[in-house]
Parts: sequence; C-alpha cells; structure tokens
Amino acid sequence: MKAMTITSPKGFRAAAVKAGIKASKNLDVALIVADSPCAAAGVFTTNKVVGAPVVISREHIKNGRAQAIFVNAGNSNVCTGKRGERDAAAICRQVSKALKIDAADVLVCSTGIIGHFLPMDKVRSGIDAAAGRLGTEAQRSIEVAHAIMTTDTKVKMAARMITLGGKKVTLAGTAKGSGMIAPNMATMLAFITTDAAISASMLQKALVYAAGITFNKVTVDNHMSTSDTALVLASGLAGNRRITRSDKDFAVFQKALWQVCDELAQQMAADGEGAKAAIRIEVRGAANAQDARLALRSISDSPLVRTAFAGADPNWGRIISAVGYSGAKCVQEKMECRIAGVTVFKAGQPRRFDAQKLSAKMKQKQWSVQVDLGMGKASDFCYTCDLTHEYITINADYHT
Amino acid sequence: MKAMTITSPKGFRAAAVKAGIKASKNLDVALIVADSPCAAAGVFTTNKVVGAPVVISREHIKNGRAQAIFVNAGNSNVCTGKRGERDAAAICRQVSKALKIDAADVLVCSTGIIGHFLPMDKVRSGIDAAAGRLGTEAQRSIEVAHAIMTTDTKVKMAARMITLGGKKVTLAGTAKGSGMIAPNMATMLAFITTDAAISASMLQKALVYAAGITFNKVTVDNHMSTSDTALVLASGLAGNRRITRSDKDFAVFQKALWQVCDELAQQMAADGEGAKAAIRIEVRGAANAQDARLALRSISDSPLVRTAFAGADPNWGRIISAVGYSGAKCVQEKMECRIAGVTVFKAGQPRRFDAQKLSAKMKQKQWSVQVDLGMGKASDFCYTCDLTHEYITINADYHT
Repeated sequence: MKAMTITSPKGFRAAAVKAGIKASKNLDVALIVADSPCAAAGVFTTNKVVGAPVVISREHIKNGRAQAIFVNAGNSNVCTGKRGERDAAAICRQVSKALKIDAADVLVCSTGIIGHFLPMDKVRSGIDAAAGRLGTEAQRSIEVAHAIMTTDTKVKMAARMITLGGKKVTLAGTAKGSGMIAPNMATMLAFITTDAAISASMLQKALVYAAGITFNKVTVDNHMSTSDTALVLASGLAGNRRITRSDKDFAVFQKALWQVCDELAQQMAADGEGAKAAIRIEVRGAANAQDARLALRSISDSPLVRTAFAGADPNWGRIISAVGYSGAKCVQEKMECRIAGVTVFKAGQPRRFDAQKLSAKMKQKQWSVQVDLGMGKASDFCYTCDLTHEYITINADYHT
Repeated sequence: MKAMTITSPKGFRAAAVKAGIKASKNLDVALIVADSPCAAAGVFTTNKVVGAPVVISREHIKNGRAQAIFVNAGNSNVCTGKRGERDAAAICRQVSKALKIDAADVLVCSTGIIGHFLPMDKVRSGIDAAAGRLGTEAQRSIEVAHAIMTTDTKVKMAARMITLGGKKVTLAGTAKGSGMIAPNMATMLAFITTDAAISASMLQKALVYAAGITFNKVTVDNHMSTSDTALVLASGLAGNRRITRSDKDFAVFQKALWQVCDELAQQMAADGEGAKAAIRIEVRGAANAQDARLALRSISDSPLVRTAFAGADPNWGRIISAVGYSGAKCVQEKMECRIAGVTVFKAGQPRRFDAQKLSAKMKQKQWSVQVDLGMGKASDFCYTCDLTHEYITINADYHT
C-alpha cells in the first residue's frame, strides 16, 4: 500500500522547518495548509489552565471554518499571560500574511515547556520559511510529524481510505504525545486532514465521538496537558455528496475517523515516555459506567501497578487493591483478574499460575489486563504503558 | 534526653524474632504486650479490599480493650480468602496461649506481599520465640521497629512525655511505611503505647484527630494499602486521673499523641520509596476545603511534578497545570506558586528567578511548595517525596 500522509487527501500542502525553538535544533515549526477554506472541527483540553494557543484556536474554530494550522514545538506558550495571547494572535496574522488567507482561518498550536515567552523572531522567520516550502510530497508530511514531537521517540501517522457514493475519500492524521497524558479530553496534539465533503457540525460530531473512545482513553502519567488539541480539516474535494446528517455515508466516515484516531492513540501509548510495553487495561462487570471508570483510573494511575508492569511482575495484588480504594462498588469474593490472558485471581482467592511463563508474556510489546468486578454489566478500557526508569530520566532531567 | 521507646510507658514489653517469613531472613515477627488489658483505639484502611488481619483486628478492638499486638512483615495475608481469616484467627489463639491472655484481646497486623498464604508453621514458631523474649529494654523496641519494616530503609520511632495533674505520662510509637501510601486513612502500620489513664472512647477520639492530620497527610505513591492500621494501647499505669471527657488533660494528651503521629508521618514521607527529599505541599486560598483537597491531590499525585522534584527542577508549569485539571475552581490570573520560598509564578505570569540557586535549594533534604489559588480561604497540606529512579527499582524488582 502506498504510504498515505496528511498531504494525501486532495487540497492540502504541508511543510516544516528548523526555527531554532527546540534546544535540539531539530524541526520545530510546521504548517498544514489547505488550498481553500475547509470545514473544521476541534476538541481541546478540559484543563482550566490552558495555553494562549488554545484560547485563540477555540475562538478561530467557532465558525467551523479554517484553512491553515500552525504548530511549533519546544515552547507551549502556556502561563504566559496577555503577552502569550498577543503572541498567539501575532502568529495567526503572520501566517495570514504569508499565505494570503484570513487570519481568523488560522489555528495555532504550541507544545513544549510551560511558562516561557515564545521567541517571536524565530517563530516569524519559521513561518515565512515554512510557507515558502509548502508541498504535497509525503516527505513534507513526515517532516511535520517530526516537527511536532517533543519527548516522542517515533513519528505518529495513520490513514484510511473509504468510498462514499463511488468516490474515493482519504483521511490522514499525524499526532504527538508521549508524556503529560491523561484520559479526559483530547490528550495530545493531533491533526487530521480529509478531502471528504462534510458539514462542520457533522465533522465536529464525528471527531467528538472518535476522540471519546481513542485519545481520551490514553493515559501515560495521568497529568492532563494545558495544550491538548485535536483538529480536523475537511477540504471537500473528494467529490462525495456532502455529508450533512447522520446517514450511511456519515457512519462510514465516522468509523474511518475513529480508526485513524485509534491508531494514533495506540501509537501514543506505545511511545509513552519510557514505555517498553503498550498495555490495554479493561474493567468489566462494574455496577455502572462511573464505577467502571473509577476502577480503571485507579488501576492505570497507580505507580505501583505500572512499575510492576515495568518489572514484568504479575503482581495482581496491586491491581486488586487499586480497585479496592477506587470508590467503585466491589467485593473481593466476586473479583477476577487476568493478566496477558492468564487468570491470576478469582473469587477472592489467588490462583496457581506459572509466574515465569506469565512474566515472559509481560515482556512482550503488547498485552492486556482484564479485571471483572462481578457487580454488573458496565465496562471501560484504556491504553497505557509501563512506568520505567526511562520515564524518570526523561522527566527528572527535562529542565526548565 | 534518654531514648524513649514503646517499652518506656509503664506496663509494656516487646520483642521481635526472625521467623523466616521475610526472604531477607531479617527480623519479621514482633509482639507488643501489656501486663494487663489496656484501653485500645485503632484506625484502619478505608480500602474495600482489606487483609484478613484488618477484618480480625477491627472485630477485636470493637470493645475498646486489647492486651497484645502481633505483627509480621514479609506477607500481608491479603486476598487470601477464608483461609487467610482462619490463619489470622489462629495467630490470635496462638498468642493467647503463649501469653495466657484472652484471644479477643489480641490485635493482629501483617504487611508485605499480597496474595500468598501465611507460612503458619513459621508464624507459630515465631510467636512462641517472641513470647519467650519479651522485655522492657529499649533494644527490644528497636528490634520491633526493625521487624515491621518492608521496603523501609530506616526505623521509625517517636515519643513524648507530658505531665497530667503532676503525673508523668509517656507516649511512644513506632511505624512502618514507605510505599503503597496514599492520603486517605491511616496509611501504614503504626503502634503507639502510653501509660496514660484514659477511656477507650477518648483514646479513639484522640487517635482519629491525630491520624487525620498526620498519617492521612502522607502520600508516597497514591496507592492505598489494604493493611493500613494505627493502634494505640493505654495501660493507665501513669497514675493520672483517668481522662473520660474533653477537658484540659485530654487536650494535652491529644496534642502529645498528635506530635508522636506527626513525627512518625514525617519520617515516613522522608523514607518514601526511593525518596531523596521530604517535601511539604500546601494549597492555600482555595474556595472551599474540597477544592483545597482536590488541588493538593492533583499536584501530589502527578508523576510529572514528582519527577521534577527528583530532578531538583523548578518546573512550576507542571504544578500549575496539575491544579488546572484538578477540578478545583481556579483562574491562572489569581494563582501564585512558591517553591522552597521563591515565588516562581504570580498573577498569571512567570516570575524571574535564579533557577540555579533555586535548584540548589531543591537538592536539600527538606523543602516545601506553596500554591495560592486566590479564590478563598481554605487550605490543605501533605507530606510527600520525590519520584526517583530508586522508586522504580524498588517496585519493578520487588517480585511476587
């Protein structure tokens, strides 16, 4: 299959440049630009402390229309007060000038360290350089994927092609996210382009649905970012009949968007800071959805559970005790726990299992934990990773 | 000052032995015994998954009377079903036989790995050996302090002497707690002896008060244990007029008990698994007590915040953003953050500070963080520590 990237859908160009914002001097300013104004949808962090870019982008996307996305990494422009907001607005004006588009059609995202003013000279030069480099080559998209990385170790990209009324429609996305990730709202930066013809309100509906069961299910360190943003631009150039209601075409589109987001979400969990394994945790048999969520969060937030994962240690006692203090209704005697397919605890009793064999399974790159509370029918899940020495190294040494 | 230990109050003996339960072959079974039945008080974990010892001890302390405490480390007898409860009850009977006291006056605590049956042969021999070794020497108390340790690196002891109506009254305690510590209820094992004459109900009142502002304020890894227990035995031999109501004597006693618990709590935070620093976090200016608690928990539970502590990195953005997603009412513009006495963020703006000097302060063994929300007058605090490589080593390698 030919590699599909965010410039594969018709009507999009992209570019990234080294503006000197990242200390590493790597690519750090990116533009994703549509040839014409697009239907646009976005979901943002629910943190009450948000970056100036989130303030501006929320405002600019309100009318469901956008034409360009600016992203920089290395500095999040968060906790920077009025000057931060002026800087974010200035970015939109600069992009507008460089591309000859409306400043209100520019969305802006910044990721990186909190509490430092943006180096606006570097940002301005970066915008002009990126605008001069825009193209449709896959290489351009890969550069964007690199430019938005902070502590990520791998680029994150996903795509789907679908057919709507005989017309080929492409969706492609790229994302960053490795730390400061908690399961509440869109939990990182994600940018998705599509050439589908779809109304802004239906695009928003599809994105909210997809984010809810993908980006919102990733937890790396239960620390919710101030910058989390997922954006979709739809150019409408695929030629499909415009989606304006919940019909069959919408269902097909929504499923494809979900799949793109799900791939990106799983890539984020697998690339969680310091992660050696991508782990899916599932809680079943909860009395209600709230209990399922509480039990799940309690397990996935526990450093004791996640260090046991890192040690490939089937220490199910830490999992069961995390459920015990979660607030979810539970009784030991009804609980069951399975790690990598092996039942380790059932009906209030430890079960015999081959610890060495199970530990070997836990050393694989992908495995799962299931906990059944035996209280009802509600369930929930998340994607997470193990808590390793590398997480500490990354976060104790990433200095302000 | 002469060293005061749990055998300093009149009427108590103690002993510890190596029963072979700990893999390390160190001291692991301890007895704390009163010459006569004592007024007894206890607080226990609020985890819904509790160990068999908690079930039995809760039952035995109901009548406000106890004479002996059995403790073993190396195996928590948690998630062991009916057999676990039978084992805990058998321990009480064995202690009762060895000491010729009522089995219902024996309290039992076990700490260590979850999900394994107690090696009852070793436990029984341990009880008999410890019973034969009971004494009032300080060395016996120090052995008990060692025996109850799991991943603790230091023994934890504290004491106070007070005068009630001209009579000298002594309170002394020992505790263990290093990991699986979250601020909800008594968050570890703590045993306090006193020769005060006090009714069981007033003793319970004093303990609940003290635990609430000491043990309940320690958080190491926000994972609440299944075994947490704090117990006080009061022999009444000091000769003070028996405390039976909230009078001046009670106030003096309660303060002394609080001080003993506070010292033990601070020793626990300082010895948090892998900790290099003991850190006091305070939230002020919250709109209400619930908001203060939410903001505090969000900060102290964040691995990103606590790894920044480990790196002596004044990365206040992680602190402010943790408040932002805590659910507490807040606005950036009113928030203020001080680290080790230095204001780093105020009125929505970063403040200039000497990062190297501040980092040097954060490398000291004890310092504090203050966050003022500027929304009201409620406050809360906790004792915590940094999240280091050693925490990962301890918990990824501590195998089931």
